[in-house]
Amino acid sequence: MLVYEGKAKRLYETEDEHVLLVEYKDSATAFNGVKKAEIDGKGQLNNEITSLIFQWLDQKGVKSHFIRKVSEREQLVKRVTILPVEVVLRNVVAGSMAKRLGLEEGTPLLSPIVEFYYKNDDLGDPIITEDHALLLEIASEEDLQFLREQALIVNQALQQLFSDIGVRLIDFKLEFGRDEQGSILLADEISPDTCRLWDKETNQKLDKDVFRRDLGNLTDVYQEILKRLRGEISHV
Amino acid sequence: MLVYEGKAKRLYETEDEHVLLVEYKDSATAFNGVKKAEIDGKGQLNNEITSLIFQWLDQKGVKSHFIRKVSEREQLVKRVTILPVEVVLRNVVAGSMAKRLGLEEGTPLLSPIVEFYYKNDDLGDPIITEDHALLLEIASEEDLQFLREQALIVNQALQQLFSDIGVRLIDFKLEFGRDEQGSILLADEISPDTCRLWDKETNQKLDKDVFRRDLGNLTDVYQEILKRLRGEISHV
Ligand SMILES: Nc1ncnc2c1ncn2[C@@H]1O[C@H](COP(=O)(O)OP(=O)(O)OP(=O)(O)O)[C@@H](O)[C@H]1O
Ligand SMILES: Nc1ncnc2c1ncn2[C@@H]1O[C@H](COP(=O)(O)OP(=O)(O)OP(=O)(O)O)[C@@H](O)[C@H]1O
Ligand SMILES: [Mg+2]
Ligand SMILES: [Mg+2]
Repeated sequence: MLVYEGKAKRLYETEDEHVLLVEYKDSATAFNGVKKAEIDGKGQLNNEITSLIFQWLDQKGVKSHFIRKVSEREQLVKRVTILPVEVVLRNVVAGSMAKRLGLEEGTPLLSPIVEFYYKNDDLGDPIITEDHALLLEIASEEDLQFLREQALIVNQALQQLFSDIGVRLIDFKLEFGRDEQGSILLADEISPDTCRLWDKETNQKLDKDVFRRDLGNLTDVYQEILKRLRGEISHV
Repeated sequence: MLVYEGKAKRLYETEDEHVLLVEYKDSATAFNGVKKAEIDGKGQLNNEITSLIFQWLDQKGVKSHFIRKVSEREQLVKRVTILPVEVVLRNVVAGSMAKRLGLEEGTPLLSPIVEFYYKNDDLGDPIITEDHALLLEIASEEDLQFLREQALIVNQALQQLFSDIGVRLIDFKLEFGRDEQGSILLADEISPDTCRLWDKETNQKLDKDVFRRDLGNLTDVYQEILKRLRGEISHV
């Protein structure tokens, strides 16, 4: 039974009430759904990339909702209640941060910066302070501290992974959810839809900015990321 | 010599290099200058109100740049280098916070919330996190802590003052500057241009929202605030 249809994925219930089937769609969207396209092969690519990354993170000790990939477009995940806060980690100024602060895209940050956004499409996912999150009762002070720490840990791990395949990890967005036991678990996806990835040598954008900014063929660059990840994570 | 002309005030140098003359203009502006009007008497009202409030704060132990009112529209202040951060304190949800978080205007906050905005007209004075302020080198961690504390102290004092004259202090914006010695001093103005003030009994708006939202005659409500403040601060 379909539980939720989002812009990029469909969630289905399974026989196990604690497990969901995630189907990755071929839809690409940007600017809160204003720009849209169907891109053949995108769903399969993101399903593969996300699966590889969650498996790799698991081996590095970072637990997530990921259980296993079950088909080209589908994976099984632990069902959680998503916290309505998007956790963004930035190593280099880009995107909305460049716009907000008037800084040049590409400026490296001395240390990574974590930002919280209120996951609310009607409000356009606004940036919020920790006080706002507490006021909205999205998360407790301890939760926010945990999300921040997790984002930094994921960053450490992913920076190494991407560095090894010649890619700079510019920034990424994480979502977390609470499981049955009340534990907070890394969820959703980690893919070129949710990360900014620049080639180390050429600074070529290998992520959804290709679609947002009409910089070329999306599946080509996602395919490139997948190819490089496969070479690195050969043991999975 | 004119040092700076802003939307609401002009700053002039005096014989004393550490002292500026502030002239309050009759201009009203909103939405980062998009909405404009000349309103007879506004300058004089804000000069008087700001002067009364800074004097009252001084007596409560809160120092500011204010030296003295020298004419209907003019006051002398200590010259400082303004920190490019606007410090907003909120007791009740209103304005941009209501919009950002999708909360109803008028919702009281259990405890006051302090927000920082990057004072940069070109960027539309965006909200920022403490990490952004550090990155922009607007203020140090200690500075931000000090600004936060000062805002809470000013709030304590002003809430009492306004409560005594039948007014709810909904929110307000402060600016701070660094003096010759490197100390941070409360600066700029505190007036119905920079505070949201609602009548306790009727919830009537007695502040610049009257102009922003076309709710009536601006000078009438500023005059009302001045009248009540004069009754309270009779000893000045
Ligand atoms: N393990 C999980 N359990 C329950 N929900 C999840 C889990 N992982 C991700 N989700 C949620 O499933 C949805 C995935 O769909 P998709 O990414 O297409 O949504 P979206 O278009 O980004 O919209 P939005 O995230 O705003 O709902 C998201 O709402 C995501 O938060
Ligand atoms: N004691 C002070 N010394 C130096 N500058 C000051 C002092 N107090 C206030 N200012 C600055 O003087 C200007 C006052 O002008 P006004 O309020 O009209 O500016 P504005 O239109 O709000 O524009 P902006 O604040 O964005 O420059 C502000 O820039 C304010 O920060
Ligand atoms: Mg999503
Ligand atoms: Mg001003």
